[in-house]
Amino acid sequence: MSAVPSSPSAHFAERYGMHSDSFAPANAVIENLLGHRTVRAYADKPVPAGTVEQMVAAAQSASSSSNLQLWSVMTVSDPERRQRLSTIGAGQKYIANAPLYLVWLADLSRAQRVGQAQGVAMDGLDYTEAFLMAAIDAALAAQNAAVAAESMGLGICYIGGMRNDAVGVAKELGLPPQVMAVFGMCVGWPDPARPASVKPRLPQSAVLHVEQYGAPDEAAGIAAYDDALHRFQDGQGMKRQGWTPQQVARLQAGASLGTRDALRAAIHELGFELK
Amino acid sequence: MSAVPSSPSAHFAERYGMHSDSFAPANAVIENLLGHRTVRAYADKPVPAGTVEQMVAAAQSASSSSNLQLWSVMTVSDPERRQRLSTIGAGQKYIANAPLYLVWLADLSRAQRVGQAQGVAMDGLDYTEAFLMAAIDAALAAQNAAVAAESMGLGICYIGGMRNDAVGVAKELGLPPQVMAVFGMCVGWPDPARPASVKPRLPQSAVLHVEQYGAPDEAAGIAAYDDALHRFQDGQGMKRQGWTPQQVARLQAGASLGTRDALRAAIHELGFELK
Repeated sequence: MSAVPSSPSAHFAERYGMHSDSFAPANAVIENLLGHRTVRAYADKPVPAGTVEQMVAAAQSASSSSNLQLWSVMTVSDPERRQRLSTIGAGQKYIANAPLYLVWLADLSRAQRVGQAQGVAMDGLDYTEAFLMAAIDAALAAQNAAVAAESMGLGICYIGGMRNDAVGVAKELGLPPQVMAVFGMCVGWPDPARPASVKPRLPQSAVLHVEQYGAPDEAAGIAAYDDALHRFQDGQGMKRQGWTPQQVARLQAGASLGTRDALRAAIHELGFELK
Repeated sequence: MSAVPSSPSAHFAERYGMHSDSFAPANAVIENLLGHRTVRAYADKPVPAGTVEQMVAAAQSASSSSNLQLWSVMTVSDPERRQRLSTIGAGQKYIANAPLYLVWLADLSRAQRVGQAQGVAMDGLDYTEAFLMAAIDAALAAQNAAVAAESMGLGICYIGGMRNDAVGVAKELGLPPQVMAVFGMCVGWPDPARPASVKPRLPQSAVLHVEQYGAPDEAAGIAAYDDALHRFQDGQGMKRQGWTPQQVARLQAGASLGTRDALRAAIHELGFELK
Protein backbone atom coordinates (compact mmCIF):
# COMPACT_ATOMS: atom_id res chain seq x y z
CA MET A 1 0.00 0.00 0.00
CA SER A 2 2.23 2.73 -1.25
CA ALA A 3 -0.25 5.46 -0.34
CA VAL A 4 0.23 4.74 3.33
CA PRO A 5 3.50 5.97 4.78
CA SER A 6 3.56 4.01 8.01
CA SER A 7 5.53 0.92 8.89
CA PRO A 8 4.26 -2.65 8.47
CA SER A 9 1.71 -3.79 10.98
CA ALA A 10 2.94 -5.87 13.86
CA HIS A 11 -0.51 -7.39 14.17
CA PHE A 12 -1.36 -7.97 10.51
CA ALA A 13 0.92 -10.98 10.14
CA GLU A 14 -0.59 -12.52 13.25
CA ARG A 15 -4.11 -11.79 12.04
CA TYR A 16 -3.62 -13.45 8.68
CA GLY A 17 -0.95 -15.99 9.45
CA MET A 18 1.31 -16.57 6.45
CA HIS A 19 -1.21 -16.08 3.70
CA SER A 20 -1.19 -12.33 3.13
CA ASP A 21 1.13 -9.76 1.68
CA SER A 22 2.72 -7.18 3.88
CA PHE A 23 0.38 -4.42 4.95
CA ALA A 24 0.87 -1.08 6.63
CA PRO A 25 -1.97 0.20 8.80
CA ALA A 26 -3.13 3.68 7.90
CA ASN A 27 -2.88 4.85 11.50
CA ALA A 28 -2.62 3.84 15.14
CA VAL A 29 -6.38 3.38 15.53
CA ILE A 30 -6.39 0.70 12.84
CA GLU A 31 -3.29 -0.94 14.28
CA ASN A 32 -5.10 -1.13 17.62
CA LEU A 33 -8.16 -2.67 15.96
CA LEU A 34 -5.92 -5.27 14.30
CA GLY A 35 -4.43 -6.04 17.71
CA HIS A 36 -7.74 -7.17 19.22
CA ARG A 37 -7.58 -10.43 21.05
CA THR A 38 -10.20 -12.10 23.20
CA VAL A 39 -9.18 -11.77 26.83
CA ARG A 40 -10.59 -14.39 29.20
CA ALA A 41 -7.99 -14.13 31.99
CA TYR A 42 -8.18 -10.95 34.04
CA ALA A 43 -5.92 -9.43 36.67
CA ASP A 44 -7.50 -9.20 40.12
CA LYS A 45 -7.94 -5.44 39.84
CA PRO A 46 -11.06 -3.34 39.25
CA VAL A 47 -11.62 -1.41 36.06
CA PRO A 48 -11.04 2.37 36.34
CA ALA A 49 -13.81 4.59 37.69
CA GLY A 50 -15.94 5.79 34.82
CA THR A 51 -15.23 2.82 32.53
CA VAL A 52 -18.92 2.04 32.07
CA GLU A 53 -19.73 5.67 31.22
CA GLN A 54 -16.88 5.78 28.68
CA MET A 55 -18.08 2.56 27.08
CA VAL A 56 -21.73 3.62 27.00
CA ALA A 57 -20.88 7.02 25.53
CA ALA A 58 -18.92 5.25 22.80
CA ALA A 59 -21.75 2.75 22.32
CA GLN A 60 -24.37 5.49 21.95
CA SER A 61 -22.13 7.17 19.37
CA ALA A 62 -22.44 4.21 17.01
CA SER A 63 -24.99 4.42 14.22
CA SER A 64 -28.55 3.41 15.06
CA SER A 65 -31.19 2.44 12.51
CA SER A 66 -33.35 5.55 11.93
CA ASN A 67 -32.04 6.78 15.31
CA LEU A 68 -34.53 4.44 16.96
CA GLN A 69 -31.92 3.34 19.54
CA LEU A 70 -33.53 -0.06 20.05
CA TRP A 71 -31.01 -1.34 22.56
CA SER A 72 -30.00 -1.16 26.20
CA VAL A 73 -27.10 -2.42 28.26
CA MET A 74 -26.93 -3.70 31.81
CA THR A 75 -24.12 -4.08 34.30
CA VAL A 76 -24.33 -7.14 36.52
CA SER A 77 -22.29 -7.27 39.72
CA ASP A 78 -24.08 -9.49 42.22
CA PRO A 79 -21.78 -12.52 42.68
CA GLU A 80 -24.59 -15.08 42.93
CA ARG A 81 -26.34 -13.73 39.84
CA ARG A 82 -23.01 -13.74 38.02
CA GLN A 83 -22.53 -17.35 39.01
CA ARG A 84 -25.94 -18.28 37.65
CA LEU A 85 -25.24 -16.43 34.40
CA SER A 86 -21.94 -18.29 34.20
CA THR A 87 -23.81 -21.58 34.55
CA ILE A 88 -26.15 -20.55 31.72
CA GLY A 89 -23.07 -19.62 29.69
CA ALA A 90 -21.84 -23.22 29.74
CA GLY A 91 -19.81 -22.64 32.88
CA GLN A 92 -17.42 -20.05 31.46
CA LYS A 93 -15.77 -18.90 34.72
CA TYR A 94 -14.88 -15.42 33.45
CA ILE A 95 -18.60 -14.56 33.36
CA ALA A 96 -18.51 -15.00 37.14
CA ASN A 97 -15.13 -13.44 37.83
CA ALA A 98 -14.49 -10.69 35.26
CA PRO A 99 -14.18 -7.31 37.00
CA LEU A 100 -17.01 -5.93 34.85
CA TYR A 101 -19.82 -7.82 33.15
CA LEU A 102 -22.18 -6.18 30.69
CA VAL A 103 -25.23 -7.66 29.01
CA TRP A 104 -26.26 -6.14 25.71
CA LEU A 105 -29.98 -6.06 25.09
CA ALA A 106 -32.10 -5.91 21.96
CA ASP A 107 -34.76 -3.67 23.48
CA LEU A 108 -38.13 -2.96 21.89
CA SER A 109 -39.76 -2.27 25.24
CA ARG A 110 -38.70 1.38 25.38
CA ALA A 111 -40.48 2.04 22.10
CA GLN A 112 -43.45 0.11 23.49
CA ARG A 113 -43.52 2.48 26.48
CA VAL A 114 -43.20 5.51 24.22
CA GLY A 115 -46.23 4.27 22.31
CA GLN A 116 -48.21 3.60 25.48
CA ALA A 117 -47.59 7.15 26.70
CA GLN A 118 -48.97 8.39 23.37
CA GLY A 119 -51.87 5.95 23.33
CA VAL A 120 -50.52 4.23 20.20
CA ALA A 121 -50.25 0.46 19.78
CA MET A 122 -46.78 -0.01 18.33
CA ASP A 123 -47.65 -2.89 16.03
CA GLY A 124 -44.48 -2.41 13.96
CA LEU A 125 -42.55 -3.94 16.86
CA ASP A 126 -44.15 -7.31 16.12
CA TYR A 127 -42.13 -7.78 12.93
CA THR A 128 -38.89 -9.63 12.29
CA GLU A 129 -37.47 -6.34 10.99
CA ALA A 130 -37.89 -4.70 14.41
CA PHE A 131 -36.12 -7.57 16.17
CA LEU A 132 -33.31 -7.48 13.61
CA MET A 133 -32.91 -3.70 13.89
CA ALA A 134 -32.63 -4.09 17.65
CA ALA A 135 -30.08 -6.91 17.45
CA ILE A 136 -27.97 -4.98 14.91
CA ASP A 137 -28.23 -1.74 16.90
CA ALA A 138 -27.05 -3.61 20.00
CA ALA A 139 -24.12 -5.16 18.10
CA LEU A 140 -22.94 -1.86 16.61
CA ALA A 141 -23.15 -0.22 20.03
CA ALA A 142 -21.34 -3.08 21.75
CA GLN A 143 -18.50 -3.08 19.25
CA ASN A 144 -17.90 0.63 19.79
CA ALA A 145 -17.86 -0.07 23.53
CA ALA A 146 -15.36 -2.88 22.97
CA VAL A 147 -13.09 -0.56 20.98
CA ALA A 148 -13.36 2.05 23.73
CA ALA A 149 -12.46 -0.46 26.44
CA GLU A 150 -9.50 -1.76 24.45
CA SER A 151 -8.30 1.80 23.85
CA MET A 152 -8.05 2.10 27.64
CA GLY A 153 -5.88 -1.03 27.78
CA LEU A 154 -8.70 -3.25 28.98
CA GLY A 155 -9.50 -6.64 27.48
CA ILE A 156 -12.93 -7.94 26.52
CA CYS A 157 -14.67 -11.19 25.68
CA TYR A 158 -18.09 -11.46 24.04
CA ILE A 159 -20.37 -14.06 25.59
CA GLY A 160 -22.77 -15.60 23.07
CA GLY A 161 -23.69 -18.11 25.77
CA MET A 162 -26.39 -15.75 27.04
CA ARG A 163 -28.42 -17.18 24.16
CA ASN A 164 -28.09 -20.70 25.62
CA ASP A 165 -31.11 -19.85 27.77
CA ALA A 166 -32.44 -16.45 26.75
CA VAL A 167 -35.55 -16.89 28.90
CA GLY A 168 -33.50 -17.77 31.97
CA VAL A 169 -31.26 -14.75 31.42
CA ALA A 170 -34.33 -12.52 31.05
CA LYS A 171 -35.64 -13.76 34.40
CA GLU A 172 -32.27 -13.13 36.07
CA LEU A 173 -32.14 -9.56 34.75
CA GLY A 174 -35.81 -8.68 35.25
CA LEU A 175 -36.31 -7.98 31.56
CA PRO A 176 -39.76 -6.80 30.44
CA PRO A 177 -41.38 -8.33 27.34
CA GLN A 178 -39.67 -7.64 24.00
CA VAL A 179 -36.19 -7.37 25.53
CA MET A 180 -33.57 -10.05 24.91
CA ALA A 181 -29.95 -10.42 25.94
CA VAL A 182 -28.19 -10.85 22.59
CA PHE A 183 -24.80 -11.39 24.20
CA GLY A 184 -22.75 -10.54 27.24
CA MET A 185 -19.32 -8.93 27.52
CA CYS A 186 -16.60 -9.52 30.08
CA VAL A 187 -14.24 -6.60 30.70
CA GLY A 188 -11.08 -6.33 32.75
CA TRP A 189 -7.34 -5.80 32.82
CA PRO A 190 -5.59 -8.60 30.95
CA ASP A 191 -3.68 -10.85 33.34
CA PRO A 192 -0.04 -10.36 32.31
CA ALA A 193 0.71 -13.91 33.47
CA ARG A 194 -1.79 -15.35 30.99
CA PRO A 195 -1.55 -13.20 27.86
CA ALA A 196 -3.92 -13.72 24.96
CA SER A 197 -2.84 -13.73 21.32
CA VAL A 198 -4.19 -12.27 18.11
CA LYS A 199 -6.14 -15.07 16.45
CA PRO A 200 -5.69 -15.66 12.74
CA ARG A 201 -8.65 -15.17 10.44
CA LEU A 202 -9.55 -16.27 6.93
CA PRO A 203 -7.63 -14.52 4.17
CA GLN A 204 -9.31 -11.35 2.93
CA SER A 205 -9.94 -13.05 -0.40
CA ALA A 206 -12.35 -15.46 1.30
CA VAL A 207 -14.60 -12.76 2.77
CA LEU A 208 -14.27 -9.86 0.31
CA HIS A 209 -16.32 -10.02 -2.87
CA VAL A 210 -16.11 -7.58 -5.73
CA GLU A 211 -19.28 -6.59 -7.59
CA GLN A 212 -20.76 -10.11 -7.51
CA TYR A 213 -20.61 -12.92 -4.99
CA GLY A 214 -17.82 -15.30 -5.82
CA ALA A 215 -14.80 -16.63 -4.07
CA PRO A 216 -12.83 -18.52 -6.69
CA ASP A 217 -9.87 -19.04 -4.35
CA GLU A 218 -12.00 -19.97 -1.39
CA ALA A 219 -11.05 -23.63 -1.08
CA ALA A 220 -7.34 -22.81 -1.25
CA GLY A 221 -7.83 -19.95 1.18
CA ILE A 222 -9.59 -22.18 3.67
CA ALA A 223 -6.89 -24.86 3.36
CA ALA A 224 -4.22 -22.24 4.02
CA TYR A 225 -6.27 -20.98 6.94
CA ASP A 226 -6.55 -24.46 8.44
CA ASP A 227 -2.75 -24.56 8.32
CA ALA A 228 -2.46 -21.09 9.85
CA LEU A 229 -4.70 -22.16 12.72
CA HIS A 230 -2.57 -25.26 13.25
CA ARG A 231 0.54 -23.10 13.50
CA PHE A 232 -1.27 -20.75 15.89
CA GLN A 233 -2.45 -23.65 18.05
CA ASP A 234 1.02 -25.19 18.06
CA GLY A 235 2.44 -21.85 19.19
CA GLN A 236 -0.15 -21.62 21.98
CA GLY A 237 0.37 -25.17 23.15
CA MET A 238 -3.25 -25.84 22.20
CA LYS A 239 -4.75 -28.95 20.68
CA ARG A 240 -4.54 -28.80 16.90
CA GLN A 241 -7.90 -28.22 15.28
CA GLY A 242 -8.29 -26.52 11.94
CA TRP A 243 -11.17 -24.27 11.01
CA THR A 244 -12.88 -26.86 8.80
CA PRO A 245 -13.47 -29.34 11.63
CA GLN A 246 -14.56 -26.49 13.93
CA GLN A 247 -17.20 -25.43 11.39
CA VAL A 248 -18.42 -28.99 11.03
CA ALA A 249 -18.49 -29.62 14.78
CA ARG A 250 -20.47 -26.49 15.48
CA LEU A 251 -22.85 -26.41 12.53
CA GLN A 252 -23.52 -29.97 11.45
CA ALA A 253 -26.80 -30.28 13.35
CA GLY A 254 -29.27 -28.40 15.49
CA ALA A 255 -27.92 -30.31 18.47
CA SER A 256 -24.39 -29.03 17.77
CA LEU A 257 -25.69 -25.53 18.58
CA GLY A 258 -26.12 -26.76 22.15
CA THR A 259 -29.42 -25.51 23.52
CA ARG A 260 -29.56 -22.72 20.97
CA ASP A 261 -31.57 -24.85 18.59
CA ALA A 262 -34.46 -23.65 20.78
CA LEU A 263 -33.65 -19.97 20.31
CA ARG A 264 -36.63 -19.17 18.12
CA ALA A 265 -39.02 -20.53 20.72
CA ALA A 266 -37.23 -18.50 23.39
CA ILE A 267 -37.47 -15.29 21.33
CA HIS A 268 -41.21 -15.86 20.94
CA GLU A 269 -41.55 -16.56 24.66
CA LEU A 270 -39.83 -13.23 25.33
CA GLY A 271 -42.63 -11.45 23.50
CA PHE A 272 -41.18 -10.93 20.03
CA GLU A 273 -43.73 -11.94 17.40
CA LEU A 274 -41.20 -12.13 14.54
CA LYS A 275 -43.95 -11.58 11.97
CA MET B 1 -14.47 11.59 36.16
CA SER B 2 -11.57 12.38 38.42
CA ALA B 3 -9.63 9.28 37.36
CA VAL B 4 -9.30 10.60 33.84
CA PRO B 5 -6.85 13.45 33.46
CA SER B 6 -7.90 14.72 30.03
CA SER B 7 -9.95 17.76 29.16
CA PRO B 8 -13.72 17.78 28.67
CA SER B 9 -14.98 16.22 25.48
CA ALA B 10 -15.86 18.57 22.67
CA HIS B 11 -18.24 15.96 21.32
CA PHE B 12 -19.88 14.78 24.51
CA ALA B 13 -22.03 17.88 24.93
CA GLU B 14 -23.21 17.53 21.33
CA ARG B 15 -23.92 13.84 21.82
CA TYR B 16 -26.05 14.31 24.89
CA GLY B 17 -27.39 17.81 24.36
CA MET B 18 -27.92 19.60 27.66
CA HIS B 19 -28.90 16.65 29.79
CA SER B 20 -25.55 15.25 30.94
CA ASP B 21 -22.82 16.29 33.29
CA SER B 22 -19.42 17.19 31.98
CA PHE B 23 -17.36 14.25 30.85
CA ALA B 24 -13.74 13.79 29.89
CA PRO B 25 -12.92 11.10 27.35
CA ALA B 26 -10.28 8.66 28.53
CA ASN B 27 -8.29 9.08 25.32
CA ALA B 28 -8.30 10.26 21.71
CA VAL B 29 -9.81 7.01 20.38
CA ILE B 30 -12.89 7.50 22.53
CA GLU B 31 -13.11 11.18 21.61
CA ASN B 32 -13.08 10.10 17.95
CA LEU B 33 -15.83 7.55 18.57
CA LEU B 34 -17.91 10.26 20.27
CA GLY B 35 -17.38 12.45 17.21
CA HIS B 36 -19.10 10.05 14.82
CA ARG B 37 -21.64 11.65 12.56
CA THR B 38 -23.49 10.14 9.63
CA VAL B 39 -22.03 11.54 6.42
CA ARG B 40 -24.33 11.57 3.41
CA ALA B 41 -22.64 14.33 1.37
CA TYR B 42 -19.30 13.37 -0.14
CA ALA B 43 -16.58 15.35 -1.89
CA ASP B 44 -16.05 14.34 -5.50
CA LYS B 45 -12.79 12.60 -4.71
CA PRO B 46 -11.96 8.90 -4.54
CA VAL B 47 -11.08 7.18 -1.30
CA PRO B 48 -7.37 6.44 -0.81
CA ALA B 49 -5.85 3.34 -2.39
CA GLY B 50 -6.08 0.49 0.07
CA THR B 51 -9.12 1.81 1.94
CA VAL B 52 -11.07 -1.41 1.42
CA GLU B 53 -8.18 -3.55 2.62
CA GLN B 54 -7.77 -1.37 5.73
CA MET B 55 -11.49 -1.61 6.47
CA VAL B 56 -11.66 -5.36 5.88
CA ALA B 57 -8.60 -6.01 8.04
CA ALA B 58 -10.27 -4.03 10.81
CA ALA B 59 -13.55 -5.85 10.22
CA GLN B 60 -11.93 -9.27 10.42
CA SER B 61 -10.27 -8.23 13.68
CA ALA B 62 -13.65 -7.86 15.39
CA SER B 63 -14.88 -10.73 17.51
CA SER B 64 -16.72 -13.53 15.72
CA SER B 65 -19.01 -16.03 17.39
CA SER B 66 -16.96 -19.21 17.98
CA ASN B 67 -14.62 -17.88 15.24
CA LEU B 68 -17.19 -19.12 12.69
CA GLN B 69 -16.79 -15.90 10.63
CA LEU B 70 -20.31 -16.13 9.23
CA TRP B 71 -20.12 -12.92 7.21
CA SER B 72 -18.82 -11.48 3.97
CA VAL B 73 -18.60 -8.02 2.46
CA MET B 74 -18.93 -6.85 -1.13
CA THR B 75 -17.82 -3.71 -2.93
CA VAL B 76 -20.21 -2.47 -5.60
CA SER B 77 -18.95 -0.03 -8.22
CA ASP B 78 -20.98 -0.50 -11.40
CA PRO B 79 -22.96 2.75 -11.79
CA GLU B 80 -26.13 1.09 -13.08
CA ARG B 81 -26.13 -1.49 -10.33
CA ARG B 82 -25.54 1.28 -7.81
CA GLN B 83 -28.49 3.15 -9.24
CA ARG B 84 -30.71 0.11 -8.87
CA LEU B 85 -29.55 -0.42 -5.29
CA SER B 86 -30.29 3.25 -4.64
CA THR B 87 -33.81 2.73 -5.93
CA ILE B 88 -34.24 -0.25 -3.60
CA GLY B 89 -32.91 1.95 -0.80
CA ALA B 90 -35.83 4.36 -1.13
CA GLY B 91 -33.96 6.55 -3.59
CA GLN B 92 -31.16 7.60 -1.26
CA LYS B 93 -28.82 9.24 -3.80
CA TYR B 94 -25.65 8.65 -1.84
CA ILE B 95 -26.01 4.91 -2.46
CA ALA B 96 -25.50 5.75 -6.12
CA ASN B 97 -22.86 8.44 -5.77
CA ALA B 98 -20.72 7.65 -2.71
CA PRO B 99 -17.10 7.03 -3.74
CA LEU B 100 -17.20 3.59 -2.11
CA TYR B 101 -20.21 1.38 -1.45
CA LEU B 102 -19.99 -1.77 0.63
CA VAL B 103 -22.69 -4.33 1.30
CA TRP B 104 -22.37 -6.36 4.50
CA LEU B 105 -23.57 -9.91 4.24
CA ALA B 106 -24.82 -12.43 6.78
CA ASP B 107 -23.23 -15.43 5.08
CA LEU B 108 -23.98 -19.04 5.95
CA SER B 109 -23.07 -20.25 2.48
CA ARG B 110 -19.35 -20.52 3.17
CA ALA B 111 -20.05 -22.91 6.02
CA GLN B 112 -22.42 -24.75 3.70
CA ARG B 113 -19.57 -25.16 1.18
CA VAL B 114 -17.18 -26.29 3.92
CA GLY B 115 -19.71 -28.96 4.86
CA GLN B 116 -20.21 -30.05 1.26
CA ALA B 117 -16.46 -30.50 0.82
CA GLN B 118 -16.51 -32.77 3.88
CA GLY B 119 -19.67 -34.59 2.89
CA VAL B 120 -21.56 -33.25 5.89
CA ALA B 121 -25.06 -31.77 5.75
CA MET B 122 -24.76 -28.62 7.85
CA ASP B 123 -28.21 -28.81 9.40
CA GLY B 124 -27.26 -26.39 12.17
CA LEU B 125 -27.41 -23.61 9.59
CA ASP B 126 -31.18 -24.01 9.38
CA TYR B 127 -31.74 -22.52 12.83
CA THR B 128 -32.58 -18.97 13.89
CA GLU B 129 -29.41 -19.02 16.00
CA ALA B 130 -27.25 -19.42 12.88
CA PHE B 131 -28.94 -16.51 11.14
CA LEU B 132 -28.58 -14.36 14.24
CA MET B 133 -24.91 -15.27 14.69
CA ALA B 134 -24.31 -14.26 11.08
CA ALA B 135 -26.16 -10.95 11.40
CA ILE B 136 -24.33 -10.09 14.63
CA ASP B 137 -20.96 -11.16 13.19
CA ALA B 138 -21.59 -8.89 10.19
CA ALA B 139 -22.55 -5.97 12.43
CA LEU B 140 -19.49 -6.27 14.67
CA ALA B 141 -17.27 -6.48 11.60
CA ALA B 142 -18.94 -3.52 9.91
CA GLN B 143 -18.65 -1.31 12.96
CA ASN B 144 -14.91 -1.97 13.18
CA ALA B 145 -14.67 -1.07 9.50
CA ALA B 146 -16.61 2.12 10.15
CA VAL B 147 -14.25 3.08 12.97
CA ALA B 148 -11.29 2.37 10.68
CA ALA B 149 -12.71 4.52 7.89
CA GLU B 150 -13.43 7.39 10.26
CA SER B 151 -9.92 7.14 11.70
CA MET B 152 -8.71 7.89 8.17
CA GLY B 153 -10.88 11.01 8.01
CA LEU B 154 -13.53 9.36 5.86
CA GLY B 155 -17.25 9.57 6.57
CA ILE B 156 -19.72 6.71 6.49
CA CYS B 157 -23.45 6.10 6.36
CA TYR B 158 -25.13 2.77 7.12
CA ILE B 159 -27.88 1.80 4.68
CA GLY B 160 -30.62 -0.26 6.31
CA GLY B 161 -32.59 0.21 3.08
CA MET B 162 -30.95 -2.91 1.62
CA ARG B 163 -33.57 -4.74 3.69
CA ASN B 164 -36.38 -2.97 1.80
CA ASP B 165 -36.03 -5.71 -0.82
CA ALA B 166 -33.55 -8.29 0.40
CA VAL B 167 -34.42 -10.65 -2.44
CA GLY B 168 -33.88 -7.94 -5.07
CA VAL B 169 -30.52 -7.04 -3.55
CA ALA B 170 -29.52 -10.72 -3.52
CA LYS B 171 -30.29 -10.94 -7.25
CA GLU B 172 -28.28 -7.78 -7.97
CA LEU B 173 -25.26 -9.13 -6.10
CA GLY B 174 -25.46 -12.74 -7.27
CA LEU B 175 -25.82 -14.06 -3.73
CA PRO B 176 -26.07 -17.82 -3.27
CA PRO B 177 -28.69 -19.27 -0.91
CA GLN B 178 -28.30 -18.47 2.80
CA VAL B 179 -26.61 -15.13 2.17
CA MET B 180 -28.41 -11.87 2.95
CA ALA B 181 -27.39 -8.23 2.74
CA VAL B 182 -28.04 -7.02 6.27
CA PHE B 183 -27.10 -3.42 5.42
CA GLY B 184 -24.99 -1.32 3.10
CA MET B 185 -22.38 1.31 3.90
CA CYS B 186 -21.48 4.45 1.95
CA VAL B 187 -17.92 5.70 2.39
CA GLY B 188 -16.22 8.86 1.18
CA TRP B 189 -14.57 12.13 2.08
CA PRO B 190 -17.05 14.41 3.83
CA ASP B 191 -17.98 17.36 1.61
CA PRO B 192 -16.64 20.38 3.51
CA ALA B 193 -19.40 22.50 1.98
CA ARG B 194 -22.07 20.30 3.56
CA PRO B 195 -20.74 19.28 6.97
CA ALA B 196 -22.63 16.79 9.13
CA SER B 197 -23.15 17.20 12.86
CA VAL B 198 -22.98 14.91 15.86
CA LYS B 199 -26.54 13.83 16.57
CA PRO B 200 -27.81 13.85 20.14
CA ARG B 201 -28.79 10.58 21.74
CA LEU B 202 -30.88 9.56 24.73
CA PRO B 203 -29.30 10.27 28.10
CA GLN B 204 -27.19 7.40 29.40
CA SER B 205 -29.72 6.86 32.19
CA ALA B 206 -32.29 5.76 29.61
CA VAL B 207 -30.16 2.98 28.11
CA LEU B 208 -27.95 1.86 31.03
CA HIS B 209 -29.46 -0.48 33.58
CA VAL B 210 -27.79 -1.62 36.78
CA GLU B 211 -28.29 -5.18 38.01
CA GLN B 212 -31.99 -5.31 37.02
CA TYR B 213 -33.94 -3.77 34.15
CA GLY B 214 -35.46 -0.50 35.20
CA ALA B 215 -35.35 3.04 34.02
CA PRO B 216 -37.11 5.10 36.68
CA ASP B 217 -36.14 8.40 35.04
CA GLU B 218 -36.97 7.22 31.53
CA ALA B 219 -39.99 9.44 30.88
CA ALA B 220 -38.13 12.55 32.03
CA GLY B 221 -35.08 11.49 30.03
CA ILE B 222 -37.12 11.05 26.88
CA ALA B 223 -38.83 14.43 27.37
CA ALA B 224 -35.43 16.08 27.77
CA TYR B 225 -34.22 14.23 24.70
CA ASP B 226 -37.19 15.44 22.64
CA ASP B 227 -36.13 18.97 23.61
CA ALA B 228 -32.49 18.27 22.77
CA LEU B 229 -33.50 17.04 19.31
CA HIS B 230 -35.58 20.18 18.81
CA ARG B 231 -32.58 22.33 19.61
CA PHE B 232 -30.42 20.22 17.29
CA GLN B 233 -32.96 20.50 14.47
CA ASP B 234 -33.29 24.24 15.00
CA GLY B 235 -29.52 24.57 14.79
CA GLN B 236 -29.46 22.54 11.57
CA GLY B 237 -32.32 24.46 9.97
CA MET B 238 -34.28 21.20 9.94
CA LYS B 239 -37.95 20.67 10.58
CA ARG B 240 -38.61 20.19 14.29
CA GLN B 241 -39.50 16.63 15.15
CA GLY B 242 -38.83 15.13 18.53
CA TRP B 243 -37.86 11.53 19.12
CA THR B 244 -41.26 10.49 20.44
CA PRO B 245 -43.10 11.27 17.17
CA GLN B 246 -40.27 9.64 15.19
CA GLN B 247 -40.68 6.43 17.19
CA VAL B 248 -44.43 6.48 16.68
CA ALA B 249 -44.18 7.25 12.98
CA ARG B 250 -41.73 4.43 12.34
CA LEU B 251 -43.07 1.73 14.63
CA GLN B 252 -46.82 2.18 14.94
CA ALA B 253 -47.66 -0.42 12.31
CA GLY B 254 -46.22 -3.02 10.00
CA ALA B 255 -46.88 -0.61 7.15
CA SER B 256 -44.75 2.09 8.82
CA LEU B 257 -41.75 -0.20 8.32
CA GLY B 258 -42.21 0.40 4.60
CA THR B 259 -41.72 -2.86 2.73
CA ARG B 260 -39.77 -4.38 5.59
CA ASP B 261 -42.92 -5.87 7.07
CA ALA B 262 -42.20 -8.61 4.50
CA LEU B 263 -38.66 -9.23 5.73
CA ARG B 264 -39.35 -12.60 7.29
CA ALA B 265 -40.75 -13.93 4.02
CA ALA B 266 -37.70 -12.54 2.20
CA ILE B 267 -35.30 -14.21 4.63
CA HIS B 268 -37.06 -17.52 4.06
CA GLU B 269 -36.94 -16.99 0.30
CA LEU B 270 -33.18 -16.46 0.58
CA GLY B 271 -32.84 -19.96 1.99
CA PHE B 272 -32.71 -19.38 5.72
CA GLU B 273 -35.03 -21.79 7.49
CA LEU B 274 -35.08 -19.87 10.79
CA LYS B 275 -36.03 -23.01 12.71
